[in-house]
Formats: sequence, C-alpha cells, structure tokens
Amino acid sequence: MAILSAFSAIKESGLALPYNIKFFFEGEEEQGSTHLHQILDKYKSILQSDLWIICDGPVHQSGLKQIVFGARGDAHLTLKVCGPKNPLHSGHYGNWVPNPVMTLAKLLASMKDENGRVTVKDFYSDVTPLSATEKKALKDAPDVDQELKKKIGFAREEMNGKTLMESINLPSLNINGIESSNVGTIQANVIPISTTAVIDLRLVLGNDWKRQQQKVIDHIIKQGFHVTEHEPTDEERNKYPKIVQVSRGTGDNAERTSMDLPAAKRIVAAVQQTTTGRVLQVPTLGGSLPLEDLVEVLGAKFLIVPIANFDNNQHAENENIKLKNFWEGIETLAAIMMAPL
Amino acid sequence: MAILSAFSAIKESGLALPYNIKFFFEGEEEQGSTHLHQILDKYKSILQSDLWIICDGPVHQSGLKQIVFGARGDAHLTLKVCGPKNPLHSGHYGNWVPNPVMTLAKLLASMKDENGRVTVKDFYSDVTPLSATEKKALKDAPDVDQELKKKIGFAREEMNGKTLMESINLPSLNINGIESSNVGTIQANVIPISTTAVIDLRLVLGNDWKRQQQKVIDHIIKQGFHVTEHEPTDEERNKYPKIVQVSRGTGDNAERTSMDLPAAKRIVAAVQQTTTGRVLQVPTLGGSLPLEDLVEVLGAKFLIVPIANFDNNQHAENENIKLKNFWEGIETLAAIMMAPL
Repeated sequence: MAILSAFSAIKESGLALPYNIKFFFEGEEEQGSTHLHQILDKYKSILQSDLWIICDGPVHQSGLKQIVFGARGDAHLTLKVCGPKNPLHSGHYGNWVPNPVMTLAKLLASMKDENGRVTVKDFYSDVTPLSATEKKALKDAPDVDQELKKKIGFAREEMNGKTLMESINLPSLNINGIESSNVGTIQANVIPISTTAVIDLRLVLGNDWKRQQQKVIDHIIKQGFHVTEHEPTDEERNKYPKIVQVSRGTGDNAERTSMDLPAAKRIVAAVQQTTTGRVLQVPTLGGSLPLEDLVEVLGAKFLIVPIANFDNNQHAENENIKLKNFWEGIETLAAIMMAPL
Repeated sequence: MAILSAFSAIKESGLALPYNIKFFFEGEEEQGSTHLHQILDKYKSILQSDLWIICDGPVHQSGLKQIVFGARGDAHLTLKVCGPKNPLHSGHYGNWVPNPVMTLAKLLASMKDENGRVTVKDFYSDVTPLSATEKKALKDAPDVDQELKKKIGFAREEMNGKTLMESINLPSLNINGIESSNVGTIQANVIPISTTAVIDLRLVLGNDWKRQQQKVIDHIIKQGFHVTEHEPTDEERNKYPKIVQVSRGTGDNAERTSMDLPAAKRIVAAVQQTTTGRVLQVPTLGGSLPLEDLVEVLGAKFLIVPIANFDNNQHAENENIKLKNFWEGIETLAAIMMAPL
C-alpha cells in the first residue's frame, strides 16, 4: 500500500517520473516463494531493469531509515525424533523406554557451545569475509544493543559479547519451535511417541543452503543417530538406538549488492531528503529474501528499502506496522521514484 | 464396572460373601486426588477395614495376572524457560537473542548422562533397598523385555542394560511433553517467547516427593539458572542470563505393603483358581496411586489387583481395555471377594 500510495501521489501531483517504473508484487514470500523462479523466467524480457528496489523488513532499531544491500539466505530442517510406537504410561515405562524429548534435547544441546557458537563442523568455514566498505558500515551503525536488550528483556547475547550487527553477518542456527505431547492443562503422564523441532538456518555470502543443511545432518549422524527421510520401519526401530526423521525444506542463498554500486549513492541521497536523521547503509538484513532468483534469472541489481518498525512482531501474533512508519515509508518510496537520474 | 459386575454375579448366584465388603470409587485420581485426604478423614470410621484391594493398572506384559504390593510415588515440575518479551524474527535476531528452546534443551540434557542415569545430585541416594523377598520377586518375574522392546519399537533401554523390573524400582525422571511456538504447517521463523516442559518424577520407597522436586531445582540453579515461581520481572530479565519459571505440582510418596503380609497368600491363592497361568507377585507398579493418603489417614494395608491389558495406551489417545481383560478381571475380582477366610 505504501508503494502504490507513493506512486499515486506522484501521478496526482502531475509530476513527471524520471524512470520507467515496473511493479512486482510477490505474495508467496512467507511460503518459500515456490513459484517465483518460474514467473521470473516466464516474464524475463518485460522484467529487465536497471535496479530493483525491494520493500521489505524493518528500518533500523534506532528509528533511522536504512538502505540495505543484501539479505541472509535461509534453509530449514525439521527433526522428528522417534519414540515408542504408541504413547506409553510414564510410570510403567519411564526410564526404561527412551524418551524422545530427552533424546532431541541432547541432540539440540550438542549443536551449540556455552557461548552460543554453533559446534557443527565447518559451520562458519565457507563464509565470505566482509569488504572494507562493509566492515566500515558495521562500525558506522548506531549502537543500539544495550537499549534493545532492555526492550527485548534479556541480559546476555547468545554469542556472548557479539553485537547484533556482527551476529547477523554470520550464519545462524535457530530453533523456531518444538513440540511433543502436551503441557499445561492437558499434560499427561506419558512417554511421547515423537518430538519435533524446526531448525532455521540463516546463511551469509559464501554459504550454500544445501551444503549448510548437510553439515547439520552430518553432525546429527556423528551424534550416533540413524537419519531417515521417512517414518522408521520396524527393522530400523529394532536396530538403531537413536532415530531421527529429517525433512529438508527448500532454501535460498544469501545475496549482497556491492556497497560501492553507483546507483546506491543516488538512492541514499534521495531518501536523505525525506529525513533529518542520517540514512544508514547496511550490508545485510538479518532476515531473508528470495534474491537468489532475481540474480540468477535476471542478473538483477537490487537495494532493499525497509519501512516497517523493528518492533513489529514479524512472523508472530499481533504482527503490526506503526502508522508513523507507514507514512514515512510513503515519503521514502516516493523520493526514490523521483530520484534525479 | 468389573468390580460391580463381580459383586452382582455373586449376589445373583445366591452365594454368601465371607467378608463385609465396602466399595470406594475415587474419580479424581488422574487429577491428583486433591480431595481424597479430606474424604478419607471425614469418613474415617466407616472406612476402617482389614485390607484394601485396589483395582488399577495393567496385568503383567506376559499376560499373566499379578498381585502388586505397592506403587511408585509421583511429583511434577513444570519448567518454563523465558525468551524475549515479544516473539522476534529469527532472521533479524537469531543468535543474538538467546533462544529459549536451546536454553531448555541444554538444561534438560544436563539432567541425564549418556546411559540414562539421572545426574541430579543425590537423586538415588535415599532409596530404601529392596527386601530379600522383593529381590526374589524381581528375579521370578518372567523376562519379557526383548519381546516388549520389539512391540514398543526401540533398540536400547534408556538405562542401558537395566531390565524393566529394575528400572521401575528406581526413581525416574521423565519428560511428559515440551512446547514452544509451532512446528509443522503453522511453523514460523521466530525466536519463541518461552519454552515449557513438564517433568514427571516417579518415586520409590525412601524418596520424599518435595525433597525430590527440590533436588531437581537445586540442579537447575547449579546450571546457572535464576529460578522463579512467577513471570520474571524486567529487573530479573536484565540481571539474569538464564531464567526459568518453575511450578511445583502436588505429589505423593511411594508406598509398599510387605510381601510377607499373611492376607496376601489368601488373595494370591484365590486369584490362582481363576487361571492356569502363574499369578505373579510384584513389589511395585511403575505407576502411581494415592496410597500415601490411605496409609496416613487410615493406617490401611493394601494390595493392588490390576486387570487392564498392558498395551492400553493409558494416559494417551485411544486409551482402551481389551474385552478379554475385562471378562478375566471380573473373574479375578469375584474370586477375591469369595476368598475363604
């Protein structure tokens, strides 16, 4: 809506656009953009452009507007640890029949050390180092960490001492959720039949999403697990003490536009006109976008221009956008559409 | 129904009961029997009896009928590990803000070693040793472990090499369920705001349920956690890197009747008349019953006479009783009601 409002405002003001503008709205991004590649391919000729401006993600936590040059890649693994074939009474069988929650807890615990560093072999080894411009950009970003920690309500970073900016420039391993039997009012005294966790792997430049998934799977095997992609058979159950059913989700690699891209200067200058605050330039979002498709199919250059508030509960209940961010977003986008050539 | 059917059959046959029989039906057992103590106390005088026959639990896994002399105690702890105050985007904040699933996984993993032995300090230290008769009873029980492992579908006992009978004669620590955010079709890329697990502690003679809960809480504190009984305050969040909200459920201690109780021989002989198979005598159920109240308030002697099939999905979906067990249960109970003095 902010994009279209910006465009309408320009048209209704009778101003002449210095560019041909094409709009591309992708509604499957939160579902893995499964048709994007195909659509880009089909409409390749009419989608050619000098620069893609991608409107996604939040402005900087300081409230300052930011132009972002890339996004992390993303890949998922769903791990389902196998328990008894039928749920069992935890009194009659507890501590004799292995508990799949404990088995999965031990597996997950093995994936990070006490300092939050991922212990999966080679997890960080193929990371492309940041350029000098990118390193400088990290340093130039306002330090909001202490304030953010208070707002979010935690005392120590997962990777003890690492700043937020440093953390999102590394590949990550996050547990999105875990489930086994029930807790609360419907809890029951059982050994659950399985325990499932979803792992979210964020990737930076140099990582390959399939390779990153494989590193984690190799780690799981090294912990003594039998890894299968289907419901375990009776033979597997009788043979292997620890069984995990792994589903590999689809993924995307990270992409970054060079911070020295000439067009970037014009975009930053245009956005700077809309605000008295400094417009930040940041190498990457922590989040992910299907940029790989754009680059692969169209050879696209892109910049990301976020407008949402950072505290927008994205991906969770009560997801929101503040009206202030919506209005300012319209100004930001209109300024970019009118940026002098 | 089996109890009442047995009683009706005797009455309708015109047989004379050798005893005064009192029936006591307790409908809150799966909810913690929170009113039992009060009821026993109120009706103390009319509830006096020479022996309580308690009908609960399964027959032996071999299919043999069994007379059981006790039950394990039980106590619960619900652990809720605190994450960010609001759910966060796992890309923008993953690996900077600590993930409560990982924090709880590490805590749970710390509670058992690789051989399934609970590592909580003094967890096994107050266990009353089995008597000579009890030890012999364990040896005399048919060995069903290998067959059971196939039926349940697992390759190695949690406490490697321990038999089922040995395992249920030890205190246990089982995870009944765990929950954090979502998995499956509604999974989302978030750092969850909390992760909750329910721990089921089974107790044997010598354990005290409050002391057993405290041992686990002391262990949690030793892992560097701040333990609280309420939702953490902002001050606590800013001060402590690891916070867990602990709810102590109510509990019951284990109880065991001496296997040398003279009345037991008569009960076993009566049940033996109903079956060609051997009637087993077993020191304890793995499961729990509010026997402590009976013993405390009434000074009761008791025997447990289970009738259900062992594979009855107790405490879970599709809980069932096989008709064979129901019919045989009626015979068992009628035989006990008619056991010669």
